[in-house]
Amino acid sequence: MTTSADTEPPGRKRADARRNIAAILDAAQECLVADPDANISEIAKRAGVGRVTLYGHFPSRADLIDAVFTRAVTESDHILDAVDIDGDPGQALGRLVAASWKIIDQFRALLLAAQNHIPSERIRAAHDRPLRRVRRIIENGRSAGVFRDDLPVSWMVAVYHSVTHTAATEISAGRLTDRNAATLITTTLLAAYAPQPTP
Amino acid sequence: MTTSADTEPPGRKRADARRNIAAILDAAQECLVADPDANISEIAKRAGVGRVTLYGHFPSRADLIDAVFTRAVTESDHILDAVDIDGDPGQALGRLVAASWKIIDQFRALLLAAQNHIPSERIRAAHDRPLRRVRRIIENGRSAGVFRDDLPVSWMVAVYHSVTHTAATEISAGRLTDRNAATLITTTLLAAYAPQPTP
Repeated sequence: MTTSADTEPPGRKRADARRNIAAILDAAQECLVADPDANISEIAKRAGVGRVTLYGHFPSRADLIDAVFTRAVTESDHILDAVDIDGDPGQALGRLVAASWKIIDQFRALLLAAQNHIPSERIRAAHDRPLRRVRRIIENGRSAGVFRDDLPVSWMVAVYHSVTHTAATEISAGRLTDRNAATLITTTLLAAYAPQPTP
Repeated sequence: MTTSADTEPPGRKRADARRNIAAILDAAQECLVADPDANISEIAKRAGVGRVTLYGHFPSRADLIDAVFTRAVTESDHILDAVDIDGDPGQALGRLVAASWKIIDQFRALLLAAQNHIPSERIRAAHDRPLRRVRRIIENGRSAGVFRDDLPVSWMVAVYHSVTHTAATEISAGRLTDRNAATLITTTLLAAYAPQPTP
């Protein structure tokens, strides 16, 4: 079959596809941040593409949410490069939580969409890079004797991931207001990480 | 349209439907506990019903997982009635975590299937009844001055839910072995709940 599209130079087709994908991801992020239940027609319309084009690039709603979510986490990871994670480990943890919380709170609806459509292990895997900062702070704190060393480091990292994301879920469910969320997260983690008195 | 089924007395049809639903839920639970990715054909086969019958009762895989999961949580809640949640709040928390962990560990694959297919708020809502025990222990501990009272009770309950389920996710991901999971959970929660020294 020969269509007019087939006569276009391949470079032009690839450039069109790249532009469409970028437009779809931008539109999906805008729609999902506003409403975790935003539907595909809405997203295609905002991206200025047809549903067929959208499904051509992202076969399912879950694929699209996965792509938007992974991109948002990657971009957020770059923003977190600005956080000083050295010096006093407790204060470093506080700085990292505060900066991370700003991002999580901004993307709360997108996180909710991800939690509802992407396997939890995929969400965790998307955070492997950002979580290396948490690991670094925990290891520094253990070396300095200000964090406990009787729990596995990987468990302490998991608790950080879990407690920060729980705050987002609690706010979405209306059980928590976001005013003090960062303080609440830091307070809880510092207590969980503190060296325990020997009985 | 008149089929032989239409000529059966309505009571008999209802009894058949009830039996089918029970068989589907039992089969789904067995299949999902063995493999969180168990497919519908497998489940229908084990239940001894056709796919059309299964989809007649549960329009989507998510609906079926939701029903199996909710039933498992409800049954587990009855098992937890046997746990003594009074007396020393720290010890009561340890007993509740130990008993809950046995159940979570047994249903770990089902929990994973639920996390991947049901909105996180649905999972949390299914736990509203079991979590009332956690709230009671936290309130007792605050009254007795052995748990901190500078964090919202609802937040402390959310941290319990989140930390126990994180242990299951960590084991499924191969980052944690289940031998010490209950101790790890209790240790983490008791530290997070402990009254903090005034600075």
